[in-house]
Amino acid sequence: MSAVRAAPDTRPAQDIEAVAPQLQAYTQNLLFEDVWRRPELSPRDRSLITMSALVAGGHTAQMPGHLNRALDNGVKPIEITALITHLAFYSGWPSAMSAISVAKEVFKARGIGPEQLHPASDPLPVDAANEAKRRAAIEQTVNPVAPDLARYTNDVLFGDLWRQTDLTARDRSLVTVAALIAEGQTDQLAFHLNRAMDNGLTQAQAAEVITHLAFYVGWPRATSAVTVARTVLDARGH
Amino acid sequence: MSAVRAAPDTRPAQDIEAVAPQLQAYTQNLLFEDVWRRPELSPRDRSLITMSALVAGGHTAQMPGHLNRALDNGVKPIEITALITHLAFYSGWPSAMSAISVAKEVFKARGIGPEQLHPASDPLPVDAANEAKRRAAIEQTVNPVAPDLARYTNDVLFGDLWRQTDLTARDRSLVTVAALIAEGQTDQLAFHLNRAMDNGLTQAQAAEVITHLAFYVGWPRATSAVTVARTVLDARGH
Amino acid sequence: MSAVRAAPDTRPAQDIEAVAPQLQAYTQNLLFEDVWRRPELSPRDRSLITMSALVAGGHTAQMPGHLNRALDNGVKPIEITALITHLAFYSGWPSAMSAISVAKEVFKARGIGPEQLHPASDPLPVDAANEAKRRAAIEQTVNPVAPDLARYTNDVLFGDLWRQTDLTARDRSLVTVAALIAEGQTDQLAFHLNRAMDNGLTQAQAAEVITHLAFYVGWPRATSAVTVARTVLDARGH
Repeated sequence: MSAVRAAPDTRPAQDIEAVAPQLQAYTQNLLFEDVWRRPELSPRDRSLITMSALVAGGHTAQMPGHLNRALDNGVKPIEITALITHLAFYSGWPSAMSAISVAKEVFKARGIGPEQLHPASDPLPVDAANEAKRRAAIEQTVNPVAPDLARYTNDVLFGDLWRQTDLTARDRSLVTVAALIAEGQTDQLAFHLNRAMDNGLTQAQAAEVITHLAFYVGWPRATSAVTVARTVLDARGH
Repeated sequence: MSAVRAAPDTRPAQDIEAVAPQLQAYTQNLLFEDVWRRPELSPRDRSLITMSALVAGGHTAQMPGHLNRALDNGVKPIEITALITHLAFYSGWPSAMSAISVAKEVFKARGIGPEQLHPASDPLPVDAANEAKRRAAIEQTVNPVAPDLARYTNDVLFGDLWRQTDLTARDRSLVTVAALIAEGQTDQLAFHLNRAMDNGLTQAQAAEVITHLAFYVGWPRATSAVTVARTVLDARGH
Repeated sequence: MSAVRAAPDTRPAQDIEAVAPQLQAYTQNLLFEDVWRRPELSPRDRSLITMSALVAGGHTAQMPGHLNRALDNGVKPIEITALITHLAFYSGWPSAMSAISVAKEVFKARGIGPEQLHPASDPLPVDAANEAKRRAAIEQTVNPVAPDLARYTNDVLFGDLWRQTDLTARDRSLVTVAALIAEGQTDQLAFHLNRAMDNGLTQAQAAEVITHLAFYVGWPRATSAVTVARTVLDARGH
C-alpha cells in the first residue's frame, strides 16, 4: 500500500475544478495531500472512519470512491461488510441497507465474490470483568424503562455483534466512535472513547480521529467531540 | 392483517445475502421474525414509527418497501399523507417533499387515487385546559425571542395541524415522538412523550417505541431517549 | 427582483396537489405566500439560509429548485460556490461534494461559466482584537486535546476560509448559523450567533432566521435554537 493510494481518487475533485476552484484547492492540497497523509493514523484507519462517517450520514453518493479507496488502503471486503453490519446497530438499519447496496456494486465491479465475505471463526471470548460492569450500567439505566432494549443490548449488541471476529474489537471501537461523532451523539461518546482506548487506541490516535472527522462531518461535531474527549482523557489521567 | 405481513418485504434482504450474510441473518431472524412480531406494539404502530424514522432521516431509498408494508399493515393512504404532512413541521419541508414524491409513486403503483387522499371532516375541538398551559409555555420561552415563531406555533402548528382529523391525536404523538428520537432532539422529547401518554400511549408502548427505533435509528439515539423517558415516567409516578 | 420571484418555483408543489392537498395548501399559502414574503429578511437572505439548510441536511433532491430561486433572488453564482465551500468545513466534505455536483448542473443549464466562478481579490484583513480572543479560546479548549485540529482551526478555518471575499463576513455568519441550526449543533451556536450580530445581523433578523428555518429543518431544531438565542440576546443586553 503506497502513500499515493492513501487519498481518495481525485478525479471527482478535478471534475469540480471549473465550478468550485477554491473547494477543489482545499480538497487537493489540504484534504488529500495533507490530512490523509498525516502519520498519526494509517490510511486504513482513515478509510474506516471515513466510511463510518459516510454510512452514519447517509452519504451514498460519496461511497463508491471511498469504498474503492478503502479496499486500496488495505481494508478487507469482509471488514467493509462487518463495518456496515456493525453500523446497522449504531446508525440504524436504513443507513446500513443503503450502504450495503452500494458496497454490493463496488464488490461486483472488483470481482469480489461471496467466498471473500463469509466470516468463519468462533465468536471472541467475553472479557468477564468489563462485561459485568457494562451489564450493571445497563441494568441501572435502560432496564427500568425498556427491559427488552436492555435485553437486546446485552444479548445481541454486546453478547453477539461485538464478539464477531470479522472486525477486531479495536476497529469496532474506531467505527463506533466515528459514527457517534458523525451523528452528534455525545451522550454515548465518553463510554465508547474509553472502550476504544481500552481496546488499544492511543491518545494521539483519538485526537487524530477527531481531527480527520472535522473534515468529514464538519467542525461543529468535531468540536463537540473534543469537549467529551477532554473529560475522558482527564479521567484516565492523561 | 396476518402476522406474516407485519414485517417488511424480505426480498431486498435476500438480495443482500451474498454480500452481507450476517446482516441478512440479523435482518431476518432478529428484526423481521422477532422485533416486528412483538405484541407490545401492533404492526400498524410499528409501520407508523418506522415511516417517521425514514422521513426524519431522509432515507428515501428505503421508503417504497416500508410504504407498501405500512399499507399492508393497515395504515390508510390518507394517514401516510398526513404523517408526511405532519413531519413537514417536525423534520422540515425538504424531508416531507422528498417523502411525498416516493409516496406518490407507491400510491400510483397500487392504484390509490385522489379520492382516497382528501380529508373531509372538521378540525378536532381544542382541549382548552391543556392548550392554555401549552400557550403559556410558548409565551414564556419562544415569544420573547421570536414572536412570529410563537404565533405560527400557536396558530398553525397546534391551532391547525394537530387538529386535522386525518390522523388521530394519539397517532400524531407517536409520529412526533418517533421523529424526535430519530433526529436526536431530546430537548422536546419530554413534552411530546408526556403528550403521547396523555393521548393514550401506555408505558409499555412508549418503551417499545424506543426499543423498535433502536433498530431503525441506531442504539445511541434510543439510549438517549431512554434517559428522557425515565424522567417523564418518574414525574408521572410510574 | 420582484416579490413574486422570492418564493421557490411552485410547480413541484402543484405536482403533489393530488397526493397531499393539505401539504400543498400549507406550502402555497403558508410557506410561499406568507413566510417567504415577510419583510424581516430579504428573499436573498432566505435563499442563503434555505440553501445552507439543504446542504447541511444532504437534501440534494430539493436543491435544483432552490438553487435556481437563489440565483433569481440575487445570490451570485460565486456566492453559491462560496456557500458550499464554506459548508465543507461546517457540515463536512461529503455534504459539500454532493451539493457542488447539483450546483454544477444548475450552472450549466443557465449558461453560467467558469469566468463567473473565480474569486479574484485579496483576503480580508484580520480583526486583530476579536481574532486574539478567538485564538485564546481555541488554545484553552481544543489545543490540549487535539493540537492539530486547533492549528487547522486557526490557520485554515479562520485564517483562510473566513477571510475569502467571495462571501461577506455577514453572509458567512448567516450560512454558518443556519447550518448549525440545521444540524442541531447548539454547542457552537452561541459563539456564531454573537459573531453574526457582530457582523451586522440584527436581533429581528436573527429571530427571523430561526423562524424561517422552523419550516426548513423542523420545529424542534428551531425551538432548541430559540433557547440559545435567548442567552445570547440577554448577554448582549437586548
